Amino acid sequence: MKTLQQVIDAIRPLDEQAMARAEQRLDGLLKPPGSLGRLETLAVQLAGIMGDRPLAFAGKQMMVMVADHGVYEEGVAVSPRIVTAIQAANMVKGTTGVCVLAANAGAGVTVVDMGIDCEQPLPGLLDRRMGRGCGNIAAGPAMTTGQARVVLETGAALVAEAVARGTTLFGVGELGMANTTPAAALVSVLTGMPAADVVGRGANLPLSMLAHKIEVVERAIAVNQPDARDGVDVLAKVGGYDLGGMAGVMLGAAAEGVPVILDGFLSYAAALVACRVAPQARPYLIPSHLSAEKGAKIALAHLDLRPYFDLEMRLGEGSGAALAMNLVDAACAVYNDMGTLAASDIVLPSH
Amino acid sequence: MKTLQQVIDAIRPLDEQAMARAEQRLDGLLKPPGSLGRLETLAVQLAGIMGDRPLAFAGKQMMVMVADHGVYEEGVAVSPRIVTAIQAANMVKGTTGVCVLAANAGAGVTVVDMGIDCEQPLPGLLDRRMGRGCGNIAAGPAMTTGQARVVLETGAALVAEAVARGTTLFGVGELGMANTTPAAALVSVLTGMPAADVVGRGANLPLSMLAHKIEVVERAIAVNQPDARDGVDVLAKVGGYDLGGMAGVMLGAAAEGVPVILDGFLSYAAALVACRVAPQARPYLIPSHLSAEKGAKIALAHLDLRPYFDLEMRLGEGSGAALAMNLVDAACAVYNDMGTLAASDIVLPSH
Repeated sequence: MKTLQQVIDAIRPLDEQAMARAEQRLDGLLKPPGSLGRLETLAVQLAGIMGDRPLAFAGKQMMVMVADHGVYEEGVAVSPRIVTAIQAANMVKGTTGVCVLAANAGAGVTVVDMGIDCEQPLPGLLDRRMGRGCGNIAAGPAMTTGQARVVLETGAALVAEAVARGTTLFGVGELGMANTTPAAALVSVLTGMPAADVVGRGANLPLSMLAHKIEVVERAIAVNQPDARDGVDVLAKVGGYDLGGMAGVMLGAAAEGVPVILDGFLSYAAALVACRVAPQARPYLIPSHLSAEKGAKIALAHLDLRPYFDLEMRLGEGSGAALAMNLVDAACAVYNDMGTLAASDIVLPSH
Repeated sequence: MKTLQQVIDAIRPLDEQAMARAEQRLDGLLKPPGSLGRLETLAVQLAGIMGDRPLAFAGKQMMVMVADHGVYEEGVAVSPRIVTAIQAANMVKGTTGVCVLAANAGAGVTVVDMGIDCEQPLPGLLDRRMGRGCGNIAAGPAMTTGQARVVLETGAALVAEAVARGTTLFGVGELGMANTTPAAALVSVLTGMPAADVVGRGANLPLSMLAHKIEVVERAIAVNQPDARDGVDVLAKVGGYDLGGMAGVMLGAAAEGVPVILDGFLSYAAALVACRVAPQARPYLIPSHLSAEKGAKIALAHLDLRPYFDLEMRLGEGSGAALAMNLVDAACAVYNDMGTLAASDIVLPSH
C-alpha cells in the first residue's frame, strides 16, 4: 500500500497537449463548433486525464464506503443506526438505489466496510474496518491523525487494485447513518462558512431538530479545533471513516490517472478534504448532480464544480455518480463516433 | 391517417390511480421517502402515462424532422443552406450528434424529410415532403392552414406507425438551416413575449447580426398577424414543416399514450404549438436539457417544464432528448428493481 505522500506525489497535472488536440477534434466534428456545450468540456477533461489512452471506459466501478459514526448518539439522525448494516447487506444483494442505477450504467459496485458498528464483518463486503464506528466528534476527534492517513491510503489502495483489474472510471458513494453531520462539519471548516449555512436535513431530519444538528456541528468544531489548512487533521477531528475513504478514492484515482465521479453532499465534503490534502487532485473530479442538501452550493462553489444534473436527489450511496456514468459514455461517443465537417465538405463559422 | 381532430380526441388524461400506486410503491422502496427527488417524479409521470402497462421502454425511437425554411434568404443563419440536405444524409449514415447519442442510449433514429430543398428525395429518409422548404415568413405565411394540419397529422401518423412496430418511448429532434428564426417567432407569439427576448444566436450567428434576426421575427409576426389562440394558425403563419412535424409527433405520442422527450429550443417552440392545439398533450412531454438558446427559459416557464440536464447544449437534432433516454431507463430501474423497506424490516420517518 502506498503511503499518503506517495499517493500525493504520483498525481500528475492533466495532459495539456491531449486537451488541445481534443478541442481541435471536437471543433472539427459534424456540428457547429461548441454546440454540444458542457458535453464537449467533459470530453476535453477526460482527454486531459487519459492522455494517449483511448477515450472509452469499459471498466466502471462504484466504490461505496460504509461506516458508522459516534456522533449518531447525539440524536442528529432519525434513521435507526442499524440501517447502516442492513443497507450494507442490501448493497451486496444489489437492491439499493446505487446498485440498480449502477446496473443501468453497466457499472460494478464495490462495497467497502470502513467501520460498520457490527460484531462480525458482513459477508460480501471488502473488510477495511477501522473500528465499530468512529469517535463522537461532538466530544472528541473522530479518529487519530494516524488513522486518518490510513483511511485515505486505504481508499487510494482500493482504486489502485481496481485499476490493476481493468477499471478506468470510478464513482464514489457512501453509507453511514448520521454521516451528514460530520460532512457538514468538514464543509464548514474547509470552506470557512458557519455551520448554520451548511447543515441540512440529511435523510428527512424533522425541521424541528435542525437547530440541534447545527449546535452539534458547532460543538464538534469548538471541541476539536481542527486546523483548516491541514486536510488530514480536519478529517481526523470532525470527519469519519466513510468520508475519509471517499477522499482516499479520489486521491487514488488522481494518482492512477483515471477520472472519478462525485455524488452529492457527502462526496463534496470528501472532495474538499482530498483537495486540501492535494489540490492537484481537483482536475480528476467529475461532478454529477446538484445535491438537495443545504450546504451543497457552498461546497460546490468552493470546489469550483458545476453539476450536470438537476434532480433534487439526496439519497447518497453514489446514486448520482452512477447516473453520470452514462453521461461520460455519451461524451466519449460524441468524441469517438461523430463524423467530421471536413468529410462532408461543410465549412461553418467558428464559435 | 387520423385527422387532427381525431388525434386530439384520442388524448386521455394521465392515469391518476396508476400515479397514486406509483407514489406508494416509491415511498416503500429501500431509501428515505422522496430522496431520489425528480427521478421519482419522473417515474410517477411515466406510471401515469403507462397506466397498467409495465414501466419499461425497450423500443426507443428518435424522430428527427428535417425541412428547409424560406426565411433563410433573409440572412438569419450563417450555415450554408445546403447543410440541411448534407446533414440529413449524415443522419442516415449515423455520423451526426443525435445518431451517436441515440446509439449510446439504445435508441433508433427515424429521419423524416418534411420538406428539404433538394431535387429528389434523399435515400434513407422517410419521404413526407410538403415542398422544397416552406414559405418565407418575413414576407408571408410559412404554409396554408390546411398544410399545417397535414404536417401535424403526418407527425402523429409517424408515431402511430412506430407504436404499432413496438416503440414505446419517443424523442423529438429537427434539422433545418435557419429554423431558430421561425422557432423564435412561434415562442414570441405563443408566450406573448417580445421578439427581442426570445431571439438567440442559433448556430453561432454573429452577435452583430442578432438585431437583424430580431427585426425579421418582428416583421414575420407583423406581416402574418397570427392568432395566438389558434396553434394551427400560428404554425401555418410563422412556423415551418420541421417544427410542425415535431408538434405532430408530440400530439401523436399523447394520442397513443406514450411518453415523448423534448430536446432544446426548437422542441420548446413545437411543444408550445402542440399544447396550444391540445393542452391535454402537456403531461406526455418529458423535458431533457436546458437549451443555451436565449428564449429557452421563457418557453420552458410557459410550458411549466423544468429540464433535468444543465449542459449548455445548442446543437438541436434531438441530441438532448437522446441523452435523456438513459434517465428514463434509470427512473424505470429504480421503480422496478429496488428492494423494499418492508423486506428489510426498516421503518423510516416519512418526507
